[in-house]
Amino acid sequence: MGLSTAYSPAGSRLATAPLAAAAARRGSVQHLRPRRPLIATVRCSVDAAKQVQDGAATIAAQEPARHKTGRLPRFGVFCPTYDLTSDDKTKSWKKLVTIAVSGAAGMIANHLLFQLASGEVFGQDQPIALKLLGSERSLQALEGVAMELEDSLYPLLREVSIGIDPYEVFEDADWALLIGAKPRGPGMERAALLDINGQIFADQGKALNTVASPNVKVIVVGNPCNTNALICIKNAPNIPAKNFHALTRLDENRAKCQLALKAGVFYDKVSNMTIWGNHSTTQVPDFLNAKIDGRPVKEVIKDTKWLEEEFTMTVQNRGGVLIQKWGRSSAASTSVSIVDAIKSLVTPTPEGDWFSSGVYTTGNPYGIAEDIVFSMPCRSKGDGDYELVSDVLMDDFLWERIKKTEAELLAEKKCVAHLTGEGIAFCDLREDTMLPGEM
Amino acid sequence: MGLSTAYSPAGSRLATAPLAAAAARRGSVQHLRPRRPLIATVRCSVDAAKQVQDGAATIAAQEPARHKTGRLPRFGVFCPTYDLTSDDKTKSWKKLVTIAVSGAAGMIANHLLFQLASGEVFGQDQPIALKLLGSERSLQALEGVAMELEDSLYPLLREVSIGIDPYEVFEDADWALLIGAKPRGPGMERAALLDINGQIFADQGKALNTVASPNVKVIVVGNPCNTNALICIKNAPNIPAKNFHALTRLDENRAKCQLALKAGVFYDKVSNMTIWGNHSTTQVPDFLNAKIDGRPVKEVIKDTKWLEEEFTMTVQNRGGVLIQKWGRSSAASTSVSIVDAIKSLVTPTPEGDWFSSGVYTTGNPYGIAEDIVFSMPCRSKGDGDYELVSDVLMDDFLWERIKKTEAELLAEKKCVAHLTGEGIAFCDLREDTMLPGEM
Repeated sequence: MGLSTAYSPAGSRLATAPLAAAAARRGSVQHLRPRRPLIATVRCSVDAAKQVQDGAATIAAQEPARHKTGRLPRFGVFCPTYDLTSDDKTKSWKKLVTIAVSGAAGMIANHLLFQLASGEVFGQDQPIALKLLGSERSLQALEGVAMELEDSLYPLLREVSIGIDPYEVFEDADWALLIGAKPRGPGMERAALLDINGQIFADQGKALNTVASPNVKVIVVGNPCNTNALICIKNAPNIPAKNFHALTRLDENRAKCQLALKAGVFYDKVSNMTIWGNHSTTQVPDFLNAKIDGRPVKEVIKDTKWLEEEFTMTVQNRGGVLIQKWGRSSAASTSVSIVDAIKSLVTPTPEGDWFSSGVYTTGNPYGIAEDIVFSMPCRSKGDGDYELVSDVLMDDFLWERIKKTEAELLAEKKCVAHLTGEGIAFCDLREDTMLPGEM
Repeated sequence: MGLSTAYSPAGSRLATAPLAAAAARRGSVQHLRPRRPLIATVRCSVDAAKQVQDGAATIAAQEPARHKTGRLPRFGVFCPTYDLTSDDKTKSWKKLVTIAVSGAAGMIANHLLFQLASGEVFGQDQPIALKLLGSERSLQALEGVAMELEDSLYPLLREVSIGIDPYEVFEDADWALLIGAKPRGPGMERAALLDINGQIFADQGKALNTVASPNVKVIVVGNPCNTNALICIKNAPNIPAKNFHALTRLDENRAKCQLALKAGVFYDKVSNMTIWGNHSTTQVPDFLNAKIDGRPVKEVIKDTKWLEEEFTMTVQNRGGVLIQKWGRSSAASTSVSIVDAIKSLVTPTPEGDWFSSGVYTTGNPYGIAEDIVFSMPCRSKGDGDYELVSDVLMDDFLWERIKKTEAELLAEKKCVAHLTGEGIAFCDLREDTMLPGEM
């Protein structure tokens, strides 16, 4: 399955060279501690701890040994290693979970990191390590984010580290939330975007394959997210393909909200909402299987024209309307939908309900083409894994639209053949199917 | 105590006229429903609900009656009234709490509103109504925020309304989080800022006095927050002065983090941290009373020079360093500190510990001048109220600095005498004491 690339540790060292160079260009940054060659901008409290003249320093004393292992050092107050088992308050906590986030200096992550650190996502007995991946350009902003995380005093947040090399940042990651992607420049074709971002996700797939936890769960948010997730899968043959997700949860949430708005009910009455296919304008919000207060949508909303035409359009245009009103893209609600996507995998799905996620199609029960990433209805036992729902209704209207979004994903796959180890790319994308309001 | 201003309901109607005018200027906005005279841009699902041809519509049928009462209508999917007692899932929930937020289209609120809606602040059995106050200029952005709140499907979030008239938005508020303030323009003196923002807070104090819950809790975040809070108090004689807070919690959190960093311990080991005085560069982070792992800070950190000089400066410069690194002010961690401030009032303070808040000084046990708003150590039983801590240590170093910040607050008070009903303002502020990185 795809490329298998041997990883050389020497490569990692080389890759961090621009970081040191960038730090040198910035000159003297306020409050900098003595520099290490590879991690110039990371301030560590170890030196400070040495000045402390009593028992408190013993907590920090274990730290230098850890640095010698070559791991990414932690930021600021998170530098010392804390023994959670030695503290009455924390000894009943679960084992630390490590979450890597790319695009960590961006607006979506600026919401998400704080939601993760608060315990809202993984629970109040789950300590968290955050590893933030940025670019050379965003490294200072990453430091700002790490400082704000320090200032937030979240008791569950025990480690924060920042870096620009995925081979360092993804090390031992239990979760990888891949938000970062290049935005589309003016006049850029979708094919060009697929290529540029595909390259990033090929590299990140290789890095995950080499250094992440072998059972890492990956949620791809950066667009085009389905095909980016496929590229990740193909470049990470040691990680089960089932562990990769492309985020369609914001589409699902928006679809639920619009059905609720139309029916005049609260949104928690809407269930069984599937988004089928690609996170693009070919996506299919499924009103055939969705339910309102346990009843089929079509029994509650009799306005078939609205369901067949306006509903899907309204869901898809939501991001564009938001940009018009708010002047920026929907960072807060995107972040909430990432939180929802994770929660859906770590808590059991309510009886009879399901959630949508873009997942690997091989073995799917619907007859959708194999070997692509397609949003489908999923259920989870809360163990981080999922299974596809098999008892869904299908009619011609739904199936035709599923075939259209499938055709688009197969075409996108051909565009990135050079990144998935399947030969020479051939790109024939006729329409611009990027969702309005997205980059 | 200060001004008592009779409020005329007719005034409120007049005040909303610019809203209709603004909507007219914008011309046809996508997806607008038929306009109401005063609430032109608020979309309501009631009309949509009427099209629903079955039982689901009965939930929405109560709504038009509510509109006739003259209250601010709710936004979008939040329009229908939901009877929480009729639902198995929600009937054990507490009574709805109404939270008004000013500056609701800004970056701090963009974090805070989602944290409030998630249940992180008030608990998972506390349904929430959010009332968002913006300006005429930000009304479209407010709609965007409300749309993102819709799309987030928070089960506890049951009402959202938006408006630009504090007399409408503050109606029945149990909490008022006053974030909005004019930023200081280039070359603007602190005195001019006090006057401009003071006027806003005088108006908002009057509005709270007239329409909010009589026991509304008010947290002032907009700067200069201590004196803005004093102005609010003086314009809201019917609300207990004890209910008003000026936010110094971010300063407290930053101070705890810096002490932890210096001592090489995790930040949850730092307790009893007081910020005394003004939220300005005269503020006093108190290392005499603070503790690390239950021991006095001075026993753990022997570097007296660092404590007396660098510590306070580092805490105060934190916002400035963040602006340099991140390119914007610290919205996320400010929002977290507002969450912390609320949590400290609605959950019992841990035994032996306390928190800082800018509160009304009359009756304080420390000998600080009466009738100003001064940050001091507080404890709460978790009932929304607080008491001042009386057993604190005082030495010459601490007292001298407390007197300096007290002098500044007394001078600020003279600057706003025209807004507190105490005669003609006289302004003699010699230094620029705005904290770096704040507006």
